[in-house]
Amino acid sequence: MRADARRNYALLLEVAEQAIAEQGADASLEQIARTAGVGSGTVRRHFPTRHALLEAVFRRQIDALSARADELAGHPDARAALVDWLNAVLSFAATTRGVAEALNRDPVEPHEHCATARLTEAGAPLVRRAAGTLTPGVTITDLLHLITGIALATEHLPDRAAEADRLLRLTVAGVSPG
Amino acid sequence: MRADARRNYALLLEVAEQAIAEQGADASLEQIARTAGVGSGTVRRHFPTRHALLEAVFRRQIDALSARADELAGHPDARAALVDWLNAVLSFAATTRGVAEALNRDPVEPHEHCATARLTEAGAPLVRRAAGTLTPGVTITDLLHLITGIALATEHLPDRAAEADRLLRLTVAGVSPG
Repeated sequence: MRADARRNYALLLEVAEQAIAEQGADASLEQIARTAGVGSGTVRRHFPTRHALLEAVFRRQIDALSARADELAGHPDARAALVDWLNAVLSFAATTRGVAEALNRDPVEPHEHCATARLTEAGAPLVRRAAGTLTPGVTITDLLHLITGIALATEHLPDRAAEADRLLRLTVAGVSPG
Repeated sequence: MRADARRNYALLLEVAEQAIAEQGADASLEQIARTAGVGSGTVRRHFPTRHALLEAVFRRQIDALSARADELAGHPDARAALVDWLNAVLSFAATTRGVAEALNRDPVEPHEHCATARLTEAGAPLVRRAAGTLTPGVTITDLLHLITGIALATEHLPDRAAEADRLLRLTVAGVSPG
């Protein structure tokens, strides 16, 4: 890609990510093109189908979560690093549920499984580093299940993000640590 | 109802509850009749439609959870009583998801909302009694959201019940009580 094509591609992805987080997997492609300041021909050239765009957005977010885990692996407070990363995964899970569903309806590859595998790999070192501060036996798989649950249970609540944050804090601290 | 009709009704509900927990909302009515040792005419007399049967099973389970909460309100260990009740609600949520969905597809009344309202009412006194042992600010609504999430996140796992139990224990104790 030429430099301006690369810029357009990156800008489109960024705008699309925002639009999809707000409006779901059915976000208007015309609106995305307008916000990015490009023509609809440019959108079609980079992303021939909605599926291609959703896939690129989804992969970009997983890439970002993996990169964030790598960064956080150097954080001096291992527990804070893990909790920080879990919050980022929760926010991803809560805003991209429609995307994962739309991708799975027309599966070129099983995205959900792929996302889970990549997040498991990315988060496992954070869990290992924080192990001394965790309830013995907690695994990255447990944590991803708990986050998936919080994202699903809060999906239809009016103040979703706030309740999801609250539930993750409770899950980390314990409802009744005893 | 005459005594034998009441017995048949109660037996059918019990058999249906078991069948639905194992096979979901599409459990075979013929099989339920056979297991209960009654004719299919008897089933139709008590439950003219599958919807009527599902509704009766669902209501019976909510009734049982309410009664269990009342019993547990007298338990000397308020924390153990709450955790015990939460386990019962989780088991209900995990086995009746298909039922709630089937009922909501053809809503005579909004069941899920009704179930939530009744469980909130039933569990609130247990939360109040256990308040001294809980993380400050925990509400029955938080707890029901966490349970819903665990039920949803574990829905497709091969060893669903065991992982759901594990996640509830982690949620109560805290992933990292710190």
